[in-house]
Amino acid sequence: MTITLERATRLRGLRCRACHLLQPADTRYVCGDCYGPVEPEYDFSGADPAAIRDRIAKGPPSLWRYADLLPVAEPASHYPVGWTTLLPAPRLGRELGIASCFVKDDSRNPSLSFKDRPVALALARALELGLDTIACASTGNLAGAVAAAAARNGLRAFVFVPATTDEGKIAGAAAYGATVVRVLGTYDQVNRLCARLADEEGWGFVNFTLRPYYAEGSKTILFECAEQLGWRLPGHVVIPVGSGALLTRTATAAAQLRDAGLVEDTPFRIHAAQPAGCAPVSDAVLDGYREVRPVRTPETVARSLAIGTPADGDGSVTVIRESGGSAASVSDADVLDGCAVLARTEGVLAEPAGGVVVASARALSSCRVPRPADPRRCRRFPRRVPGGAGMSVTVRLATPLRAAAKGEATISVEAVDLAALASEIAARYPELAARVLRDGEFGRFVNVFVDGEDARFLGDGDLRGKRTVEILPAMSGG
Amino acid sequence: MTITLERATRLRGLRCRACHLLQPADTRYVCGDCYGPVEPEYDFSGADPAAIRDRIAKGPPSLWRYADLLPVAEPASHYPVGWTTLLPAPRLGRELGIASCFVKDDSRNPSLSFKDRPVALALARALELGLDTIACASTGNLAGAVAAAAARNGLRAFVFVPATTDEGKIAGAAAYGATVVRVLGTYDQVNRLCARLADEEGWGFVNFTLRPYYAEGSKTILFECAEQLGWRLPGHVVIPVGSGALLTRTATAAAQLRDAGLVEDTPFRIHAAQPAGCAPVSDAVLDGYREVRPVRTPETVARSLAIGTPADGDGSVTVIRESGGSAASVSDADVLDGCAVLARTEGVLAEPAGGVVVASARALSSCRVPRPADPRRCRRFPRRVPGGAGMSVTVRLATPLRAAAKGEATISVEAVDLAALASEIAARYPELAARVLRDGEFGRFVNVFVDGEDARFLGDGDLRGKRTVEILPAMSGG
Repeated sequence: MTITLERATRLRGLRCRACHLLQPADTRYVCGDCYGPVEPEYDFSGADPAAIRDRIAKGPPSLWRYADLLPVAEPASHYPVGWTTLLPAPRLGRELGIASCFVKDDSRNPSLSFKDRPVALALARALELGLDTIACASTGNLAGAVAAAAARNGLRAFVFVPATTDEGKIAGAAAYGATVVRVLGTYDQVNRLCARLADEEGWGFVNFTLRPYYAEGSKTILFECAEQLGWRLPGHVVIPVGSGALLTRTATAAAQLRDAGLVEDTPFRIHAAQPAGCAPVSDAVLDGYREVRPVRTPETVARSLAIGTPADGDGSVTVIRESGGSAASVSDADVLDGCAVLARTEGVLAEPAGGVVVASARALSSCRVPRPADPRRCRRFPRRVPGGAGMSVTVRLATPLRAAAKGEATISVEAVDLAALASEIAARYPELAARVLRDGEFGRFVNVFVDGEDARFLGDGDLRGKRTVEILPAMSGG
Repeated sequence: MTITLERATRLRGLRCRACHLLQPADTRYVCGDCYGPVEPEYDFSGADPAAIRDRIAKGPPSLWRYADLLPVAEPASHYPVGWTTLLPAPRLGRELGIASCFVKDDSRNPSLSFKDRPVALALARALELGLDTIACASTGNLAGAVAAAAARNGLRAFVFVPATTDEGKIAGAAAYGATVVRVLGTYDQVNRLCARLADEEGWGFVNFTLRPYYAEGSKTILFECAEQLGWRLPGHVVIPVGSGALLTRTATAAAQLRDAGLVEDTPFRIHAAQPAGCAPVSDAVLDGYREVRPVRTPETVARSLAIGTPADGDGSVTVIRESGGSAASVSDADVLDGCAVLARTEGVLAEPAGGVVVASARALSSCRVPRPADPRRCRRFPRRVPGGAGMSVTVRLATPLRAAAKGEATISVEAVDLAALASEIAARYPELAARVLRDGEFGRFVNVFVDGEDARFLGDGDLRGKRTVEILPAMSGG
């Protein structure tokens, strides 16, 4: 007699989004080969959709009901996260001009935001790895989610936030017993600080060193929506975009549901919702699905979306285009009005990010948003600063890169601009070049900082008079 | 062929808690005979527990899964309420010295408190009655729950709160579009104002004119706990007490579960948790299960429990005694520490009322609370003011009482004190006396106000120099 046991997880390994190499799901958090972001990949060949649906239906009332579609198992010690209401919202729909309108109310999660989902996955992985500390860079919500999860599981937590973060959110994270570090700077600067700390400490940075697992948590929102709609995809989703992780993982989730045979391949359009004061993704979509141009100083009432250099920004634009979706960029006044409309029509009180979604849905439904023009492409960094004598800069390498540079933590390179730096690296450190360069330029998944400033803000990439260059992998939002 | 359909509800009618008369479940909210509070009564004769459990298991993930045990049906238009996590809390348990400790986390309800439960029931009844406005007196949480429910269902909402209510809670209620009326006074004074308004307006005051249904919502917490524990009662429950409605209905719920054969009749002790600055019920329990002495000016950080004259205060003391339970009265410092401990150990961030429960559980588990002494009994109002000439007071009667006083809204009575007033009423209005008096005194379910002051604060019940007396039925907390 042969007994076939279906695996609880169908994880095949981690696939690099840049070079597409499939690699083992060990402690790596970036591609071992090219430094690109890695994502879990699953094998649904031979899967029986009915059996999976049945296991899901019998699963717990939390995101762990989707164990078949997740890379880690439920930790026994955590509290339930997810399986939140998909609220039919007819009164809101009438107000927005949407015939069939639903609100996925993730404010019902333990720390009041969807961030409890990715943190649940990152926490599960942290416990698997035996870590005693978790940490994050956050615009506010992730701080609370990490602090609460750490408290619940008896771990230490360090959370790093911009000093301008809402007092209530900081107080919340502190109340859970986390060490809250307020950083005088934008989220992107906080993120860079955390990337360096992650190199130096053994902490589990949920949106950095645990990112491959963390980001999977965002997929569970669509899993739930599909199940709650009777195993079908919605026609449209409007997604608030900070780092773009939720948006890109929603597309991945749809693909996974289709792969597993759980839903039909029906039209499924993904739309980005951003506040005008920080709309790098929406602007890129509306400007013809072009590359994302970072926002140096986000200014918006929707602080949890104030991420000027979204790690999954370009990825978001791509999946929006592929889905046939669009985007909206809405004023702060419309954001606050969106919150008021949601509260008045459905009795759901959301933070400003929720208002961004409502205002964007209104704009999209009333066609106040122009259809994107034809795609164009622009370079990330202009090539070649004209003239100028060669100067030396110190290039600081993140830990996973050092093996490709003969074990050095820093290297000294003569270069007048980033293009010259790239050429020098290609000539002297071919192994390193293979990891961080694409077509002779720094790759899209690599963050380059020049004297602490994101290179994307430098215009011509001029390195004259500069002292240090840092090369860091991308991070998820918070 | 005979088909027997089990009724969805087993409601038999409304039973008066004072005179025990069973009466029809029409629009009445107090006993038609004696003015006492009425409560739904159910008929579980011939009930099949297995069939009920099965219907519950197949029911929606909300409190409406207990349709068999509730007096109204689920309104199609409302959002899901209840079916919240019963969180195993081992880390909190170790901290408090409790071997098996659970937290019922009702902060996961739509407006973040358990008040969404009673409001769901009151709303269902309001919709049945075709009302277009709901209202409440509130210490904060009920305001948000009523405002949100009204918004979701397209009703108007008026909420009345003490001016000292937390700004955040007032802002929350206002955001849902409710008209928020801040009253310069205590909750008890707000409540009295609302009782008069309820007489004059056609609004559905959830904790007053809809109270028989409203209060039933509180029972669903224990229904859920029992189901989540595998259909058994917990050994102990520690309940935060404001008006005492949650505590008394928890006892009713246990009785109902036993009646219906859903749980065994195992020991089930109910303990009251109150802040020292407003602990009329806990003090009464700890002082030998005596009658409740009202607190004129509650002073506590746990504002949602700041109800000095709890409508279900004496009822709470009775059910605590009958259950073999006790009580704790904890300092504000311990309350805040309780919040911190809960957040640090379990990742659950609660308002101060949650801290009251944690601090009380700690006190009860460590036996810092003395066992109550023997029951004693004391009079509510002292009899007879010595001497003094007869003076006339105007007695204002709430609407349901007027029929018993020849249709009069006010009557003029000569009396030097409340005892004399009671005698005069007995002599001149026997029908009215039958409703509001017990053994020649004003009954325990009647609120008497003298020139706007609760008669329980008057000491000797002296009416000399006073002008008006109001007689109002009891109200539930908020």
